[in-house]
Amino acid sequence: MARTGRRPGRPDTRGEIVSAAARCFASAGYDATSMRQVAAGAGVDPALVRRFFGGKEELFTAVASAVIDPASALAAMADGPVDQAGERLLRYFLGLLGDVRRPGPLLGLVRAAVTSDHAADVLRQFLAETVHAGIAAGLHADQPDFRAALVASQLVGIAVARYAVRLAPLAAADTDELAGWVAPVLQYYLTGDHTTQEEP
Amino acid sequence: MARTGRRPGRPDTRGEIVSAAARCFASAGYDATSMRQVAAGAGVDPALVRRFFGGKEELFTAVASAVIDPASALAAMADGPVDQAGERLLRYFLGLLGDVRRPGPLLGLVRAAVTSDHAADVLRQFLAETVHAGIAAGLHADQPDFRAALVASQLVGIAVARYAVRLAPLAAADTDELAGWVAPVLQYYLTGDHTTQEEP
Repeated sequence: MARTGRRPGRPDTRGEIVSAAARCFASAGYDATSMRQVAAGAGVDPALVRRFFGGKEELFTAVASAVIDPASALAAMADGPVDQAGERLLRYFLGLLGDVRRPGPLLGLVRAAVTSDHAADVLRQFLAETVHAGIAAGLHADQPDFRAALVASQLVGIAVARYAVRLAPLAAADTDELAGWVAPVLQYYLTGDHTTQEEP
Repeated sequence: MARTGRRPGRPDTRGEIVSAAARCFASAGYDATSMRQVAAGAGVDPALVRRFFGGKEELFTAVASAVIDPASALAAMADGPVDQAGERLLRYFLGLLGDVRRPGPLLGLVRAAVTSDHAADVLRQFLAETVHAGIAAGLHADQPDFRAALVASQLVGIAVARYAVRLAPLAAADTDELAGWVAPVLQYYLTGDHTTQEEP
């Protein structure tokens, strides 16, 4: 899922640095992560991290590109019946977030977006390339940008409430139980009607 | 709404400090906020901040108590038809968050909860005292703790997506437009049935 691991067959220093950065962003947050910490995590010299990536913003973008694959997210929504797109998207997202006790690097991206404008920009771009594009192209619903933002609000809320704040009922629930409750909400945002709709 | 202002008729140094702390938590986040910054914001000596509050955790708890009034949140849910409790809760929450361009102190609490265990504890406690209690007492729905956590996930997601990440469609939408989309979701979490429900 996360493409940050060592590639087989040859040393991958760049990949090691991205993995270390992903761990730092997830555990310490964006602001508290330094190039020096990332270098220590990857077992390399800080100068090498700067040579590969320049600064923290570029490093964050590299982590996001390694974690989030827009094509996979689009496929998760598009491949299958339209009326189950919400459930497929939720399961894809929960898979990216990983185990509650050992969350994957996506949580670091979400956490970073709460405090960093650059991180928020990166996630907005991802949203436009995936959910927004998926709704407009595959689901043929009106107001794709508004719907994508609502979908994002619920997914980000699950990430924060279940993985960061660790609300006990959400942390204890398994994927099927969460899907039973939340998938209908995502489906409603993706394709449903609502009462006070205004044309864009 | 926020009870952090100066009380009429006498100087309120404690209140000034809480207001300054709320501004710091909202703009800089929990980790980056120092007692010294809060003191500077309130125009007092750092020693006075420590004398009143002890440490940053106690200061955060004081800000949360000033911002969040469990009785008002409970009343927002309980006072009126049960089938509009979701809309009332959403409007109460959006009112607490304030204007998109000048968010109120609640956003600082939500941001802090993403990175600080203490802040997360404080918000979990608030959730148990309000949404959870409201569902159990007034709405007579099953699984009140699970439902409260789902409500929290959507509300926190709106706070992050609209006010912190500032997704354009959500930032541009007015309260009525948001309520048209999101209130049915909160209502579903508060009182609705769902497909794969498991008894606790």
